[in-house]
Amino acid sequence: MNTAVFHPPVRTLMGPGPSDVNPRILEAMSRPTIGHLDPVFVGMMDEVKAMLQYAFQTTNNLTFPVSAPGSAGMETCFVNLVEPGDKVIVCQNGVFGGRMKENVIRCGGEAIMVEDEWGKAIDLGKVEQALKDHPDAKVLAFVHAETSTGAQSDAATLCALAREHDCLSIVDTVTSLGGTPVKVDEWGADAVYSGTQKCLSCVPGISPVTFSERAEAAIRNRKTPVQSWFLDLSLVMGYWGPGAKRAYHHTAPINTLYALHEALVILQEEGLENAWARHRRNHEALKAGIEAMGMSFVVDEADRLPQLNAVTIPEGVDDAEVRTRLLNDYDLEIGAGLGALAGKIWRIGLMGFASNARNVLFCLGALDSTLTSLGARIESGAAVEAACKVLDAC
Amino acid sequence: MNTAVFHPPVRTLMGPGPSDVNPRILEAMSRPTIGHLDPVFVGMMDEVKAMLQYAFQTTNNLTFPVSAPGSAGMETCFVNLVEPGDKVIVCQNGVFGGRMKENVIRCGGEAIMVEDEWGKAIDLGKVEQALKDHPDAKVLAFVHAETSTGAQSDAATLCALAREHDCLSIVDTVTSLGGTPVKVDEWGADAVYSGTQKCLSCVPGISPVTFSERAEAAIRNRKTPVQSWFLDLSLVMGYWGPGAKRAYHHTAPINTLYALHEALVILQEEGLENAWARHRRNHEALKAGIEAMGMSFVVDEADRLPQLNAVTIPEGVDDAEVRTRLLNDYDLEIGAGLGALAGKIWRIGLMGFASNARNVLFCLGALDSTLTSLGARIESGAAVEAACKVLDAC
Repeated sequence: MNTAVFHPPVRTLMGPGPSDVNPRILEAMSRPTIGHLDPVFVGMMDEVKAMLQYAFQTTNNLTFPVSAPGSAGMETCFVNLVEPGDKVIVCQNGVFGGRMKENVIRCGGEAIMVEDEWGKAIDLGKVEQALKDHPDAKVLAFVHAETSTGAQSDAATLCALAREHDCLSIVDTVTSLGGTPVKVDEWGADAVYSGTQKCLSCVPGISPVTFSERAEAAIRNRKTPVQSWFLDLSLVMGYWGPGAKRAYHHTAPINTLYALHEALVILQEEGLENAWARHRRNHEALKAGIEAMGMSFVVDEADRLPQLNAVTIPEGVDDAEVRTRLLNDYDLEIGAGLGALAGKIWRIGLMGFASNARNVLFCLGALDSTLTSLGARIESGAAVEAACKVLDAC
Repeated sequence: MNTAVFHPPVRTLMGPGPSDVNPRILEAMSRPTIGHLDPVFVGMMDEVKAMLQYAFQTTNNLTFPVSAPGSAGMETCFVNLVEPGDKVIVCQNGVFGGRMKENVIRCGGEAIMVEDEWGKAIDLGKVEQALKDHPDAKVLAFVHAETSTGAQSDAATLCALAREHDCLSIVDTVTSLGGTPVKVDEWGADAVYSGTQKCLSCVPGISPVTFSERAEAAIRNRKTPVQSWFLDLSLVMGYWGPGAKRAYHHTAPINTLYALHEALVILQEEGLENAWARHRRNHEALKAGIEAMGMSFVVDEADRLPQLNAVTIPEGVDDAEVRTRLLNDYDLEIGAGLGALAGKIWRIGLMGFASNARNVLFCLGALDSTLTSLGARIESGAAVEAACKVLDAC
């Protein structure tokens, strides 16, 4: 065996994440590793917590990044809040609601499913009815921004409904944080998790989470121990919690935290409102180009996420062939459909650092050329101009 | 709020991990992020698996890095192999045996503890007796290299005892992998986890694991689902497993995997036997210096880990003051004692890239000077020369 050093190709990442990582973040990550109990590192952790509070728009004390990917962030919320026998109302309108159901079951809870068509926002009326039908439910869990479909749901109303019915809320903001408004305190959300590799343009591997005081109280009042030692917040907080003494729990992913720190400094420099506006503007430009080609969106306009564009694949076009050509000919990655939407849609991400005019025009040009060369029935040649008009008008 | 960019100090890391990261690894990690389903990335994953098989000295097919720190690697072994009601014999001779017990309990298992004094190797006779006393035990779990004390146990015999008594073995090699012989197939170990931030000199955040065919069969024959969705190997293997199709499970920590790939290329270049010999040589030099100062080791010579030196703090010396001075005056980190050994020992790591002559002499010089300036009763001035003699003789 004689394995060579690995040099990745330079791709443009316009799938559902990871998105293009800002070079500042890659550079920050490569700074010298220091100890996870070094006072200088502990100071940096405090800054990460404060900047995450800004990103989440919350004053929640229990706000920090879990030392594992978004799926573990999800699991952190469920294993800490759901005990055996607890009823959880789970909204499903895509892949990630289904994963929430799996989490509930594995915690010994009972999942009451409220299902909506994939690509639609969560139906508020159905959720309200489920809350009325199950007055003993402890938690309402839903996905704010469904990464599998590009649909956004009304998190403010869903969280308010949960509170009205004395439920805690668990909210997935993996794809929304930094791209569209996430307002944890204004919503009154109780347990919220996210990812770093979407609109924060950071590398994957850790998962920002935040918990309200109501959620903290629920954790303190548990009757059973949390089934995961690694994700048990009562232990994790010995390391991430306030106070002078930080106790060893596990070894934090130090360099990945350097990366998140830099991503949050960048977000702070731009400002949340400006970041949201940028995501909106580049989405409008991409949309103009996609529509100029005669292609359509999966999600109703009102519920569309600007950072994740689910586009219907034109009839007769081979999904995999197009994505392979984009990757091989253009070093451009766009996303496939998941689950029920596999083969039927593409997911074009415009997330974080990748949400820029260059990527919009590049993607439209490459897609137009590739589809045309494959004989797809699209309006060829009109996409880039249509997008430019939108960008010029902004 | 206006948080500045974070620039860590340049430390020398001679604690219990993270150890100094090879600059090649930091550079590799900062290469452009690509998608976690990109064919080029999937090819790199196969190389990581093959190089981990070399590091673990195994042909186990199920060999890969868990996408979270060593504690999650431990939890992966327990949640997949232990079901409610299962009896697990857990050896405890330091902090990490205690964490294994916690894992067993949280899986609904029954932990039979075999306890030894901290700093001692695991007593083989006591383990054999426990296996005889509990013929229905399913698993024997132990720590090969106790990071909290620097003691090494006889993994080959412990694994053989487990097999004789029809038990699976779970083995912690967090601190041994790459530093002292870890021979998974020769031992007949069944589930083995490790860390990246010790003798592999890589950044922390992921955890190499390997499972024997016996362990795989036990997982396939489970009666209950694994309690963790994130760590459920039947799902994780859809992504890391063999075969053309890699199914999405979670987003892998892409850049951290670049780092591990580079760390394993470096290990392969040096060769395992050479790496073990280097760790041994630098330990001998440090030991000569420590003893020349009149200080002693916690662990009996036969059971000492060369990569983690537990040294008794001289009487009357303030643990924290010395470590703070070393950090502030020399940018040098050494480790404190944990649990029962807190305040009584220092843990001096010579792990991976940090196991070199420069670090040995630097640490001895800084320690000698600091202890002397604090009025400690040590033999001043003799340490560096004693260490040099050993290094010269090699």
